[in-house]
Amino acid sequence: MTTVYDLVIRNADVVTASERFNCDIGVKDGIVVALGRDLGAGRREIDATGLLTLPGGIDAHCHLDQPMPDGLKMADDFLSGTRAAACGGTTTVIPFAAQAKGQSLKAAVADYHRRADGRAVTDYAFHLIVSDPTPEVLERELPELIASGYTSFKIYMTYDDLKLSDREILEVMDVARRNQALVMVHAENSDCIAWLTDKLTEAGNYAPKYHALSRPAVVEREATHRAIAFSELVDVPILIVHVSGQDAIEQIEWAQQRGLNIYAETCPQYLYLTAEDLGQEDGYHGAKCVCSPPPRDSSSQRAVWSALKRGVFSVFSSDHAPFSFDDPQGKKPDGKEVSFEHIPNGIPGIETRLALLFDGVSRGKLSLHKFVELTSLNPAKLYGLYPRKGTIAIGADADIVLWDPLAHVAIANDALHHNVDYTPYEGRTVQGWPKHCLSRGQLLVESGRYLEPEAGRGRFLAAGKPQYVDL
Amino acid sequence: MTTVYDLVIRNADVVTASERFNCDIGVKDGIVVALGRDLGAGRREIDATGLLTLPGGIDAHCHLDQPMPDGLKMADDFLSGTRAAACGGTTTVIPFAAQAKGQSLKAAVADYHRRADGRAVTDYAFHLIVSDPTPEVLERELPELIASGYTSFKIYMTYDDLKLSDREILEVMDVARRNQALVMVHAENSDCIAWLTDKLTEAGNYAPKYHALSRPAVVEREATHRAIAFSELVDVPILIVHVSGQDAIEQIEWAQQRGLNIYAETCPQYLYLTAEDLGQEDGYHGAKCVCSPPPRDSSSQRAVWSALKRGVFSVFSSDHAPFSFDDPQGKKPDGKEVSFEHIPNGIPGIETRLALLFDGVSRGKLSLHKFVELTSLNPAKLYGLYPRKGTIAIGADADIVLWDPLAHVAIANDALHHNVDYTPYEGRTVQGWPKHCLSRGQLLVESGRYLEPEAGRGRFLAAGKPQYVDL
Amino acid sequence: MTTVYDLVIRNADVVTASERFNCDIGVKDGIVVALGRDLGAGRREIDATGLLTLPGGIDAHCHLDQPMPDGLKMADDFLSGTRAAACGGTTTVIPFAAQAKGQSLKAAVADYHRRADGRAVTDYAFHLIVSDPTPEVLERELPELIASGYTSFKIYMTYDDLKLSDREILEVMDVARRNQALVMVHAENSDCIAWLTDKLTEAGNYAPKYHALSRPAVVEREATHRAIAFSELVDVPILIVHVSGQDAIEQIEWAQQRGLNIYAETCPQYLYLTAEDLGQEDGYHGAKCVCSPPPRDSSSQRAVWSALKRGVFSVFSSDHAPFSFDDPQGKKPDGKEVSFEHIPNGIPGIETRLALLFDGVSRGKLSLHKFVELTSLNPAKLYGLYPRKGTIAIGADADIVLWDPLAHVAIANDALHHNVDYTPYEGRTVQGWPKHCLSRGQLLVESGRYLEPEAGRGRFLAAGKPQYVDL
Amino acid sequence: MTTVYDLVIRNADVVTASERFNCDIGVKDGIVVALGRDLGAGRREIDATGLLTLPGGIDAHCHLDQPMPDGLKMADDFLSGTRAAACGGTTTVIPFAAQAKGQSLKAAVADYHRRADGRAVTDYAFHLIVSDPTPEVLERELPELIASGYTSFKIYMTYDDLKLSDREILEVMDVARRNQALVMVHAENSDCIAWLTDKLTEAGNYAPKYHALSRPAVVEREATHRAIAFSELVDVPILIVHVSGQDAIEQIEWAQQRGLNIYAETCPQYLYLTAEDLGQEDGYHGAKCVCSPPPRDSSSQRAVWSALKRGVFSVFSSDHAPFSFDDPQGKKPDGKEVSFEHIPNGIPGIETRLALLFDGVSRGKLSLHKFVELTSLNPAKLYGLYPRKGTIAIGADADIVLWDPLAHVAIANDALHHNVDYTPYEGRTVQGWPKHCLSRGQLLVESGRYLEPEAGRGRFLAAGKPQYVDL
Repeated sequence: MTTVYDLVIRNADVVTASERFNCDIGVKDGIVVALGRDLGAGRREIDATGLLTLPGGIDAHCHLDQPMPDGLKMADDFLSGTRAAACGGTTTVIPFAAQAKGQSLKAAVADYHRRADGRAVTDYAFHLIVSDPTPEVLERELPELIASGYTSFKIYMTYDDLKLSDREILEVMDVARRNQALVMVHAENSDCIAWLTDKLTEAGNYAPKYHALSRPAVVEREATHRAIAFSELVDVPILIVHVSGQDAIEQIEWAQQRGLNIYAETCPQYLYLTAEDLGQEDGYHGAKCVCSPPPRDSSSQRAVWSALKRGVFSVFSSDHAPFSFDDPQGKKPDGKEVSFEHIPNGIPGIETRLALLFDGVSRGKLSLHKFVELTSLNPAKLYGLYPRKGTIAIGADADIVLWDPLAHVAIANDALHHNVDYTPYEGRTVQGWPKHCLSRGQLLVESGRYLEPEAGRGRFLAAGKPQYVDL
Repeated sequence: MTTVYDLVIRNADVVTASERFNCDIGVKDGIVVALGRDLGAGRREIDATGLLTLPGGIDAHCHLDQPMPDGLKMADDFLSGTRAAACGGTTTVIPFAAQAKGQSLKAAVADYHRRADGRAVTDYAFHLIVSDPTPEVLERELPELIASGYTSFKIYMTYDDLKLSDREILEVMDVARRNQALVMVHAENSDCIAWLTDKLTEAGNYAPKYHALSRPAVVEREATHRAIAFSELVDVPILIVHVSGQDAIEQIEWAQQRGLNIYAETCPQYLYLTAEDLGQEDGYHGAKCVCSPPPRDSSSQRAVWSALKRGVFSVFSSDHAPFSFDDPQGKKPDGKEVSFEHIPNGIPGIETRLALLFDGVSRGKLSLHKFVELTSLNPAKLYGLYPRKGTIAIGADADIVLWDPLAHVAIANDALHHNVDYTPYEGRTVQGWPKHCLSRGQLLVESGRYLEPEAGRGRFLAAGKPQYVDL
Repeated sequence: MTTVYDLVIRNADVVTASERFNCDIGVKDGIVVALGRDLGAGRREIDATGLLTLPGGIDAHCHLDQPMPDGLKMADDFLSGTRAAACGGTTTVIPFAAQAKGQSLKAAVADYHRRADGRAVTDYAFHLIVSDPTPEVLERELPELIASGYTSFKIYMTYDDLKLSDREILEVMDVARRNQALVMVHAENSDCIAWLTDKLTEAGNYAPKYHALSRPAVVEREATHRAIAFSELVDVPILIVHVSGQDAIEQIEWAQQRGLNIYAETCPQYLYLTAEDLGQEDGYHGAKCVCSPPPRDSSSQRAVWSALKRGVFSVFSSDHAPFSFDDPQGKKPDGKEVSFEHIPNGIPGIETRLALLFDGVSRGKLSLHKFVELTSLNPAKLYGLYPRKGTIAIGADADIVLWDPLAHVAIANDALHHNVDYTPYEGRTVQGWPKHCLSRGQLLVESGRYLEPEAGRGRFLAAGKPQYVDL
Repeated sequence: MTTVYDLVIRNADVVTASERFNCDIGVKDGIVVALGRDLGAGRREIDATGLLTLPGGIDAHCHLDQPMPDGLKMADDFLSGTRAAACGGTTTVIPFAAQAKGQSLKAAVADYHRRADGRAVTDYAFHLIVSDPTPEVLERELPELIASGYTSFKIYMTYDDLKLSDREILEVMDVARRNQALVMVHAENSDCIAWLTDKLTEAGNYAPKYHALSRPAVVEREATHRAIAFSELVDVPILIVHVSGQDAIEQIEWAQQRGLNIYAETCPQYLYLTAEDLGQEDGYHGAKCVCSPPPRDSSSQRAVWSALKRGVFSVFSSDHAPFSFDDPQGKKPDGKEVSFEHIPNGIPGIETRLALLFDGVSRGKLSLHKFVELTSLNPAKLYGLYPRKGTIAIGADADIVLWDPLAHVAIANDALHHNVDYTPYEGRTVQGWPKHCLSRGQLLVESGRYLEPEAGRGRFLAAGKPQYVDL
């Protein structure tokens, strides 16, 4: 009796983090069940000739519909956010369930589930943000949430409403060690930023470009070293998020060479933007590139590319932070002269992430295998989603992107699918763009056209324990 | 119409350099043609439950039936050598076709084919050894041989009958650059060794342990730095073979961090032996561990393990050099008081290589994926055999080892299959040993029993251009 | 008309930080006024044949009669402290005028002058300790004190009653930058120590040896890196005091190689003690070696020696902290079971400092010139006392020690001149000991005998601006 | 009875490698015999007010009247060379007695004495150049010459008529170790240079600028690492001469941090010239800057300044190589199209050395003390001339330069005193120039005017054993 597949992808040029081979792919019930030559018929068939067949991207650092202080509102919710993700080749997102100070962590998680339910079109997991590590949180909520599938949490070393003291960081890391969870660290020294900001604003320096001067590389380097020291002291792996350049990289690589399990992530903004992009003063357009840590310079861009190639970084994410520019709550202040310190931090990028990194593959800056490893395999492993996600293999979800490696695309916000009114990469041309995108065997995007799948088809993924990759 | 496979491996726990998944494997005409759940019937079926299903090992550095000066003769020819390889889980070997000074390189290759033909039971490719880079060799023979499937060649910085001058090394590397071949370098400073040897023997120090003192780490470090400099100058990747410890590792990692494409290999002797193993003076047994570079100390062993884990090394080989001990032409001199400088250099290890490294996996020193990468995937890529070899994927040769990760084996030469009369690891216990071994779908070893396949079934593999992996 | 000198030292083998020469030294009014062959007569003459004639030592880190919290009292006041200093070859001390939280800095200085006046037998300057950097302190008191001759101040990154926040450290460094003063930093992470201390005491670990476990090297390394970052950010030189070992040294050397002006000091305890010296549990004798940072291990001792030789350190001080052992307020708790956290931190060493370092000269670990540089010239320059102190040259104060390089001395507390009831170096034998010691031409110690000079003959030295030495 | 000095320098602002003090200096019989206030009368008196009083410079790397192959002749003999030295503030020179292959080393020394006798106006010592280390040289001549006051010798790793094999280098270093002499190494890889030169000239690239391309930094780095390795193996200090930039500096600093005694020297050309100065093709003027190693780039210049400040370098010399440009035997070929490989290597600089480094003092790049250390004290110590030379101290030769730190001088060959017809620094303005120059108390230069002292007044200095300074 011959199997009839729900879907067969013919002539797939499959690329994983280490392998490349040609075959047909048979999918049943959303799962890859067969890889082979001349597979039997599928109810639906797709010809992958001329395309790369890659595991769908996992965006392990993005902000969607996250409650914000001061009436600030994110432009993307789970519907528009996962729509944009899918159009960019990403089939799993891991945004943040953020605890407000004074709030129960479980309440934050419950609230965040309400925001995702019935909206997401791709699958998703949650990181936690721990901003108030009370004994209740440390001793009861965190262990229980970890056991329930929330196995990673982010902590901040800056931002007044989020930052933890050194002692609190140690306590949180200790919980992670005892419960086998992964702590993600935003590493910038809060006091240094405040001191510099006061100096700048006292001198009347308000423009967006001063954002970069208020958090120079040394501020990130210090906090990075400190986080590494805490990780060493507590004896638990950590992951430093959105590393911006040479100074922090040097600390991380130094730690890795000592045998410490310091993982690191970087983002497109550190490959393509520099502090000069914040310097367009007229019309306040520089605000569009305000994010933290700020982009550095071209020398740091080279350092980030090199560290990606060498394996210093394990994860490449977007840090998508969907604040519109021309909006009362957005990055461009509404008619008021406002200091850089009040510009919402963060830039959009969930849809352009993969293409911007792939352009480096096109230009010989890193291998295709490293691309898959950074954007899909490693996030799946580190955040407990492997082998369901992150690969094309028997038993994995059929989250697959069929990638056109020869497409030349000029990035234009008009053609993107998020709800943000700009992209910092407007006009930049890249080689390589996703053509078709499948989630559990269902086409979400076909020949670049979004197929408007049912809102809420995306499922929550309870994450397992981190699977640590080699450093 | 249902496919009938020549062979189906059921319930395989497949591990590649980056993935791990469960499935059945269908083989036809020696090729993996299907991975899937509940594959149709095979003419032969193997149940892999409880075993790891790994790509067969590739031993990219071994010496078999290599003509030697001074009437010296290797104990293993292609039959016994590949027999031992298969019994250790290795399904491809890449020994050396060595040019003697004054000899045509093509003549050396032709001679070496005669030695392999009708003897090998696993597949094999050849590295060249270039000892006499005449204009004829550089301008005609090498380019033609590279085009014919001999895409890697080894050069020596020591040994009077093999070593090249700095100028010759540059010329050979330049040929590699222009023809896209990979140069392997034996890096030890010849003059330093000669000077130290003279000092030692003038002082009456003849015992095997002085072999280690005649080539200390600084001698290897210097030559390693020099080879790196030449690679940088010529602008061509190279691979440093049999790196012994911390000093050379430091140079290689320094080069890699500068963005130079310096690949490196290490071997079991640098994980398990130390210079003290050469120091057993009675009965001259220390001679059994004489190899070059010599094993160092326990601190260097830790450095090698760490560098394997971190990815400083790309390849793990045996450097199998089959000289018997108790033999007129062997390592134990026949009744004469002989200086260490006359002990044949090299030790056997083709059968124990994989188990010795796997024991590190068992003890948490490196990951299972890194094991596969070092012993199979990377050698296949770097030496132009991928994707035919080095993986379990559709289209690849069904060179598969079914590995018992829980077997505890005490290594004993009596149980090995080479023709050498000793193993330096006698009595050492490891966890993990190959159970079944298949070459192109044919069982060569079953439940540890060698099935005596036909001599000569092994095929010569014409190598393609190197595929460089990320550093 | 021939000059008649107050004092002539004949046949002096003078050693400075860079030179060595033989001559007579003529002193008048406490000043070196002549160096030459066959100088005219002196009212007093000393024959220096067979001795080294060195600039008197400057102990730039010592605690004398410093007011302490919790009724704790130091055993040495300015009389006994400077007496012990002189007997050890030290002719200038720089203890600390410490501000208590809430106290005016000027009041602290005035109080400290009262303690020194009429007591000191050697000259002295003051460092400040800033523990409460109010706007009044930052904007008025510090600038005025700097202008009045208090040009160095110490800050703490740990100890609840002393530590500054990151923001406060930046503010204090900024004052130093604007007023050209030198900030000295005690670099240990306070929260880490508190977290570890809680873990240890919760587990019932109270013995002195747990003091070392409560502040491991990583805790010092982190704070050292942080202090370096702040120095870089503010753009002002700093000096890290009492560096204990390899981890912190690595950070400091890394900073120096980047061109940052990070100065560093170490102390005898890091050359001669290890954490094991805290581990003598019976009778609580390990408490005698409790100091912060704690001594490390023998490998760190080697690292400190090497860094002294290489110039990573600029200053070698005692950190003399005179707490007696067998005293109700001392290091040995009076009949109570008390946790390590309540043992007063610090050990005595003002008299043994020079001899302990000189022993390294005797054993070839550093040069005689480096000895003079570390113990006298550099402290004089960095703390604004040069050229009056720190050298033997025309115009300098005749603070001179005549050193017997061949004396073998077994250190015994009975023979020391401080008021502390123990020395951690009891029984240790050193080669080299001061024979005569002169302050402004007056013999304080003759042939090892303390001459009981008038209490109060020592003068306060108003310090000039730091003169930065090469790094 | 009051002393009457031959010479008194009044109001001297004396600067040594570590000290600075004001005094009068009394000289008798060419020796400094008194330092003091208000010294008695001198037969001659010089007022040093407003000037710096420095130890006369020692140029430890210069070539004077050295026999050359191919009929090449140096423009400066001992008379014009030492005349220029004195006018630049240098009172001791150490040129090279060079052995030709096949020549006795003693014969070379005897010949070189004939060239110096009756010509030199400053004192001088000799380095040896060992180009033919026969057993006779190694076993008899070198030990005897070392015992006779020739305690340093230079070896070459490149130049066909001078270079030694690795084995020969080891043998020479071993002689140095056994006899306590100092080996100076010219570190460039000969085969690399030959290979690159052949490539360049085969492609028709003959202009002077290709000289720089024929010996890139990697060629110097390799040989530097190799020399360091040999020094480590033989266990003897060495000194790497004329280090050109970052690559070699990194190797040297790495070695120093490992505790190896690797000394290093650099020269003005690496602070002020770059490879672009060789690129002036018209009229072949680029040939004026041809030296080996070649100048690098501005980034390397910064690295050299930084390493000078940090103490990586111990010696700063000129490598004065007096070849005229417009001369049949000079750097400009006489009417023929000639390849860069035939331009004599080396540039003049004996008179400008001190002023070019002092300009860095004027611009805050290094301290005045470091200037004295690099140009006078350290060469005196390392080459066995201390304490007779290298300092201003009782008993030292009165070799003193009175330096005007405020003079602004535009360098012009017309105003220089060598016999070379150009200076590579023509037109460059420096701050600081020697005003008066004394050798053993005799004025050679007064207010910038050369006083034409008697040829031959300069004395040969038999050198003692090296006195190793701290690294």
